[in-house]
Amino acid sequence: MNYPNGIKKSVTNHHTNYANRGMMLEQDLNSTNIYYREIDKAYIYKKPTPIKIVNVDYQSRKLATIKEAYFLEPSTTDYNGIYKGKYIDFEAKETKSKTSFALENIHPHQIKHLQNIKNQQGIAFLIVRFTNLSLTFLLTANDFFDFLEKNNRKSIPLNYFQQKGYLLKEKLNPRIDYLEIVDKFMEEKNDKKRNKKEKDK
Amino acid sequence: MNYPNGIKKSVTNHHTNYANRGMMLEQDLNSTNIYYREIDKAYIYKKPTPIKIVNVDYQSRKLATIKEAYFLEPSTTDYNGIYKGKYIDFEAKETKSKTSFALENIHPHQIKHLQNIKNQQGIAFLIVRFTNLSLTFLLTANDFFDFLEKNNRKSIPLNYFQQKGYLLKEKLNPRIDYLEIVDKFMEEKNDKKRNKKEKDK
Repeated sequence: MNYPNGIKKSVTNHHTNYANRGMMLEQDLNSTNIYYREIDKAYIYKKPTPIKIVNVDYQSRKLATIKEAYFLEPSTTDYNGIYKGKYIDFEAKETKSKTSFALENIHPHQIKHLQNIKNQQGIAFLIVRFTNLSLTFLLTANDFFDFLEKNNRKSIPLNYFQQKGYLLKEKLNPRIDYLEIVDKFMEEKNDKKRNKKEKDK
Repeated sequence: MNYPNGIKKSVTNHHTNYANRGMMLEQDLNSTNIYYREIDKAYIYKKPTPIKIVNVDYQSRKLATIKEAYFLEPSTTDYNGIYKGKYIDFEAKETKSKTSFALENIHPHQIKHLQNIKNQQGIAFLIVRFTNLSLTFLLTANDFFDFLEKNNRKSIPLNYFQQKGYLLKEKLNPRIDYLEIVDKFMEEKNDKKRNKKEKDK
């Protein structure tokens, strides 16, 4: 679209948006986690990016400059912490696809890590945002591994998120109230346990 | 001490030992955590060092080189994870002192973080090694904060660790079996709760 004095305004904005998009979910989660800490609800942090430091210039004790370093593949998920005494662990990813979430977005050792946390009775899940649809879902580790077991696909289709996932609506503050959903599925889990006990009686 | 052909051997060794010492506890804990993961006992990791990346050279997508970065102060403790479904969180420090552990070794926001985790019913503690005494102690967050409340000192004396802390003996594998101690004080906590309930009846 051409604007009066020749500026392709929409294209410029488009580019800017794209550049920021990869970080938007992370920013939303960081501000959400700060909000949770401020109201003393939960202590959940994003782990620093793992890097291999090769060369450091120690000009002074306080001002060391890293001169050469490389990014390492993370061995765990990005986010973990504590909520209501429980261990919380999740990975957050964005996709530009409008139809599915490619599994190559998650490293194999991150998948293994989620499995380990699930087995240890931790609360594990994925948060996936379809940026071009403005839809953000929480998918529990149970439903994620259920999909992996029953399918041999390289991606999870959008409709699986719509069926099994929980839609995370964006709000002002907290931006993405994912602990509201965690409460929900913890309750559902307890209900199931209770029903099972009732049956077993 | 001078050796036959003029080599000051003891001094050389001394220096080498000192250089490694700052890392020994970290190495011991890392190998311990790997052991715990291998036997599926607990999933506890050291968080990567937080850094602020200023300049990255993207030669290729796979081989990005960080050219300028700075160390940031950590906002949390170094280690966290899950054990028996519970959230575990601790900080590990070495001291060369033979008499006390200086509190300046722990950042104020790390102390605040331990307090938050304790309040949220997480399992929080310190592991402190007196390198020159070859003594490593686990001090629970409860006893740590008890000390801070009752004292106005800038360091915790060794005898407080000897009285209130748990001695961690070094073994072959796992190097420092701190979860054995966690089991112990979790039991003691449960016993106290049980006794309280009995009394209240």
